[in-house]
Amino acid sequence: MSAPKYGVVSVGNALVDVISKSSEEFIDEQKAKHGMEKGAMTLIDESRALGLYSEMGPGTETSGGSAGNTMAGFASFGGKGGFIGKVADDELGKIFQHDLRAMDIIFETQPLQMGAKTGRCLILVTPDGERTMNTFLGASTELCEDDVDKNLISDAQVTYLEGYLFDKETAKNAFVSASKAAHDAGRRVALSLSDPFCVDRHRADFLKLVENHVDILFANEDEIKSLYQDDDFDSALDKVASNVEIAAVTRGANGAVIISKGEKYVISAEAVSNVVDTTGAGDQFAAGFLYGFTEGRDLESCGKLGAIAAAEVISHIGPRPLVSYAELAKKAA
Amino acid sequence: MSAPKYGVVSVGNALVDVISKSSEEFIDEQKAKHGMEKGAMTLIDESRALGLYSEMGPGTETSGGSAGNTMAGFASFGGKGGFIGKVADDELGKIFQHDLRAMDIIFETQPLQMGAKTGRCLILVTPDGERTMNTFLGASTELCEDDVDKNLISDAQVTYLEGYLFDKETAKNAFVSASKAAHDAGRRVALSLSDPFCVDRHRADFLKLVENHVDILFANEDEIKSLYQDDDFDSALDKVASNVEIAAVTRGANGAVIISKGEKYVISAEAVSNVVDTTGAGDQFAAGFLYGFTEGRDLESCGKLGAIAAAEVISHIGPRPLVSYAELAKKAA
Repeated sequence: MSAPKYGVVSVGNALVDVISKSSEEFIDEQKAKHGMEKGAMTLIDESRALGLYSEMGPGTETSGGSAGNTMAGFASFGGKGGFIGKVADDELGKIFQHDLRAMDIIFETQPLQMGAKTGRCLILVTPDGERTMNTFLGASTELCEDDVDKNLISDAQVTYLEGYLFDKETAKNAFVSASKAAHDAGRRVALSLSDPFCVDRHRADFLKLVENHVDILFANEDEIKSLYQDDDFDSALDKVASNVEIAAVTRGANGAVIISKGEKYVISAEAVSNVVDTTGAGDQFAAGFLYGFTEGRDLESCGKLGAIAAAEVISHIGPRPLVSYAELAKKAA
Repeated sequence: MSAPKYGVVSVGNALVDVISKSSEEFIDEQKAKHGMEKGAMTLIDESRALGLYSEMGPGTETSGGSAGNTMAGFASFGGKGGFIGKVADDELGKIFQHDLRAMDIIFETQPLQMGAKTGRCLILVTPDGERTMNTFLGASTELCEDDVDKNLISDAQVTYLEGYLFDKETAKNAFVSASKAAHDAGRRVALSLSDPFCVDRHRADFLKLVENHVDILFANEDEIKSLYQDDDFDSALDKVASNVEIAAVTRGANGAVIISKGEKYVISAEAVSNVVDTTGAGDQFAAGFLYGFTEGRDLESCGKLGAIAAAEVISHIGPRPLVSYAELAKKAA
């Protein structure tokens, strides 16, 4: 087995975020009319995406997607890695490609030539800084087993899978195929559960994946409770600890808990003077953690790097770093 | 003459901004290779736009264009108005349309169906907060006299023209046509000089426009010096004062000077704790000034509203307001 060339290769939805400020009343109206759930991610189709867009306020467009955000953070720490995901051959697709490649992230998945447009996530940020996401997956759901670059995966220490991709059947197969390729090469597989509703939609498949293929699990409190249908956080933690080598569970303002081989590490959240937009908090926690992990740091240090990145991303609009995470980590050390 | 329905209708380039952080070294390299001028706006063609984009860091896309930014600020104060400008029938064009209409700004110019793409401005923001702009005008230069909606213009107190449009001959005719329509309806015409290099490229035409058609002139120090080819600020001010009813000249951190009918008003800049990105400072000064003016405020109050808006926009990335200017104005009063 040769030494890995890269730290992390991610497999995820290729999405462009359209971020807009929203009042609480607008979310309430949209909930009543369209079932929008504040703070969660709702899947929408193209016609609903167009309808919602026309009702939203002015927006800012920026590359997003959970695993793409994580790779941007990982690169900002100084990590080398790649991304596997599907855009269409259109303007938003070109923006998504550019933004990853501009950070020296390898991204060679062939764009979809015909059919759906590049996926987009319409994000409404309320005055409390919470984000409510409405995702039109578009071309990103066309990711299939053939797109999973096994050479790239076997060259990476960790293959990181985004739970949101589970919303389409073909992507589930791509996940299993990516996991097998990683393990065949002696590498590790990480998974982010992404969203309690996503877990709810695909609980049995997630459990099977976690039990059989996942070494490192990222989740928040609600997600692991949903995965094990257990309202007691500590008992859900015990269950996840028996399934994976490492579980990193984020708890918002209460920081995070990392469990591995019977040991538990409690990580405090970094102080943030003004929470502007929580989009990307979990993604950047994973970025910091994975950077530390692939650099051989101890688990507590990995968690600390995750907390540093999460604190930066929630202090501004947008899901990706606005400053160098390498610099932030240096200052904190 | 009926009462005007709207405060301001703007005529300008319809551009989407692609904003990216840049090192000083990158600007130096681009200056040596391509003549990029730090702090200024350089016009580029499509192939150079693609080349520069591929070398730039990850970006954020947001609707821009000088006069479009001014209208966004004007609407944020609570003003009612319209915009005349040309996008293409593509994704970036739809983003530009949406962002204006989402602020209740009337924007009915027909998109270009064939030919150039929607124009874009590649903006590099250096660590000192200065922005260096590289504009591919694209479809925006196809704006012609037929696009100038004379009914809309005669319904507005002020028709506001963006100097940047002067870079194409057909647009110059559209300007004159818009000015005549405004004056025929008994309204006022405002012009922003936009950029000292733009003034330099079209000095004779600008002078003719200012002398014959402009009531309110917006400029910064460098622009009026360039217009009158006069290195002495006070003497350039005297010249502009003899040409227009009102001249509002911005001086960066030194605030602004307003001259009208022999009176001079000195406006202090508002304190800004952290200048992040100066993109849109002049545009938002004009927004505040025009809002005050169309609400019948005295010129000193108009200048103060301009300073409030400019201070907000330079404290974050992006050329348009992130908070309500109506609220800021209320707090300041």
